[in-house]
Amino acid sequence: MQAASSRRWTNGASVPGVALITGAHGFIGRHVARRLKSDGWVVVGVGHGAWTEQQYRAWGLDRWHEATIAVDLLSALGIVPDVIFHCAGTSTVTAALRDPRREFERTVGSTEEVLEAMRRFWPGSLLVYPSSGAVYGEAKTFPIPETEPVAPVSPYGTFKDQAEQLCRLYEGRFGVRSVILRIFSVYGAELRKQLLWDACRKFRSGDLSFQGTGREVRDWVHVDDLARLMNPLISRPDASGVQVINVGTGTGTAVADIVGMIADAVGGGRVACFSGQVRPGDPATYVADIARARAFGWHPSVPLTRGVTEYVQWFLASQAGRHAIP
Amino acid sequence: MQAASSRRWTNGASVPGVALITGAHGFIGRHVARRLKSDGWVVVGVGHGAWTEQQYRAWGLDRWHEATIAVDLLSALGIVPDVIFHCAGTSTVTAALRDPRREFERTVGSTEEVLEAMRRFWPGSLLVYPSSGAVYGEAKTFPIPETEPVAPVSPYGTFKDQAEQLCRLYEGRFGVRSVILRIFSVYGAELRKQLLWDACRKFRSGDLSFQGTGREVRDWVHVDDLARLMNPLISRPDASGVQVINVGTGTGTAVADIVGMIADAVGGGRVACFSGQVRPGDPATYVADIARARAFGWHPSVPLTRGVTEYVQWFLASQAGRHAIP
Repeated sequence: MQAASSRRWTNGASVPGVALITGAHGFIGRHVARRLKSDGWVVVGVGHGAWTEQQYRAWGLDRWHEATIAVDLLSALGIVPDVIFHCAGTSTVTAALRDPRREFERTVGSTEEVLEAMRRFWPGSLLVYPSSGAVYGEAKTFPIPETEPVAPVSPYGTFKDQAEQLCRLYEGRFGVRSVILRIFSVYGAELRKQLLWDACRKFRSGDLSFQGTGREVRDWVHVDDLARLMNPLISRPDASGVQVINVGTGTGTAVADIVGMIADAVGGGRVACFSGQVRPGDPATYVADIARARAFGWHPSVPLTRGVTEYVQWFLASQAGRHAIP
Repeated sequence: MQAASSRRWTNGASVPGVALITGAHGFIGRHVARRLKSDGWVVVGVGHGAWTEQQYRAWGLDRWHEATIAVDLLSALGIVPDVIFHCAGTSTVTAALRDPRREFERTVGSTEEVLEAMRRFWPGSLLVYPSSGAVYGEAKTFPIPETEPVAPVSPYGTFKDQAEQLCRLYEGRFGVRSVILRIFSVYGAELRKQLLWDACRKFRSGDLSFQGTGREVRDWVHVDDLARLMNPLISRPDASGVQVINVGTGTGTAVADIVGMIADAVGGGRVACFSGQVRPGDPATYVADIARARAFGWHPSVPLTRGVTEYVQWFLASQAGRHAIP
């Protein structure tokens, strides 16, 4: 049993304590786990995914519980986390279109479970909720500030928005504290889905065709930069109300350009082609205004060219079977 | 197995077909069931509540299944409903404050299940969703039109709003059709909760004290009037987009005044007192603009004084054990 020490967050000191990471087996969860561990936190993970002790310890987890997120399960962990990073949930626009009920349950339902566990058992804890830039939908202001009205255009965006609504409900009604991160196009080693993954696989197989126009502009932020935001953020939570913070770089890159970087890194002089068809739920431009995140003393540090090159190196190594940790 | 006949709703004819009512054991559900049955519909009910065949048939149901609303359960019913009236869900502000997770699951989660069943199995069906005036929160326009921005101030209102969001998501993404009713203070025989029920019980027990100021203004609409809206509404669904329709009378009555009507009907010259404290999640005024509902040829027909008098008569009879159907 770990003791609660939530007062440290209100008196301004930044002594690491106990962090609970749901969905710690996933792409963002494992990187945040490793970062918090290296910062001195005790890190407990829960969610789906088969991991040996050696594997989860390599990702910074002191404990790993393979289970579905639910109030009873969370209370059974026997901890009082200082901070909860709720990564469990749907992660792609396409998954939410294919099986909306499952993705609703994983994203909105699981957030309700976490908030309820906080209300009942962990009233002093802070929730960090990784939402998405997708909640903005077809934004009118670029780069998009956090004050932009939300208007999601995909089930994925709607579910993330609903999870945010629950955070606000529990803060306003029950005093459960949370910080919402609206993460833009996060990437890095271990990301086994979405554009960079698909592009690497395609170039490897010789398939050079992509959906979309290639002119869609996205704000790619490296997962290491996202993870570095955790400590300043949980050391300085907002005094009142739910704080919403964009996580991006403030710089947009067209899909065709990042695909070109991947082609260069893979080698072989390949050039991609695009179908020209706009995908539903896929707005033309997503670039974050990151002034709020910068106010925490944080700034993105991984240049896109380096990040993409390293990603391709990781991809090629993982395909060659040299990447031991699943 | 009942055949689908959804085309009748697009060709304008109003021949009754198969209606599925979730939460049919509840206050609104049973009244709607009885009304649809009397209009010639085959009525199937599902939800929680113990009912004998004699009992559910007395309320107009041809079949009753005691079960939790879920996709698998709905598909197992072996019907293709023309219209689904999804009454299952939370019904009070206080219940949602007491156990928000349970009420989230019952209201938002169950709506997701119904919409998913429609997407998978019943694409030609029409959902009628009984939302609430509570989604408006602290409205700025009175009487409140459907165009008023939603800003719920209670968990109950938030959950109803989220259920509406799912209706819009499924309409926009998957072509699942729905009509949203924002019901104001509905009352009538069988309502065993909320102000009228509490007032009747208090006057009977000699407790004359009420929470609130007594000056809260509500729009009381009789459940028989709500039920009479079903047929014109499902015969003329909106051609595109999710239609939102307020259900009220357009006239506000202060809580103290309706409590006074109950006191008169109960007899004995009692006068209520009010604590003067505003209850959280309880806005001062809720009165509906009902122009849209009137455009269906519908209008509220039960005067409040008659409705309240009949309610008190029903209450006294039910307390005397003369009301056989639970």
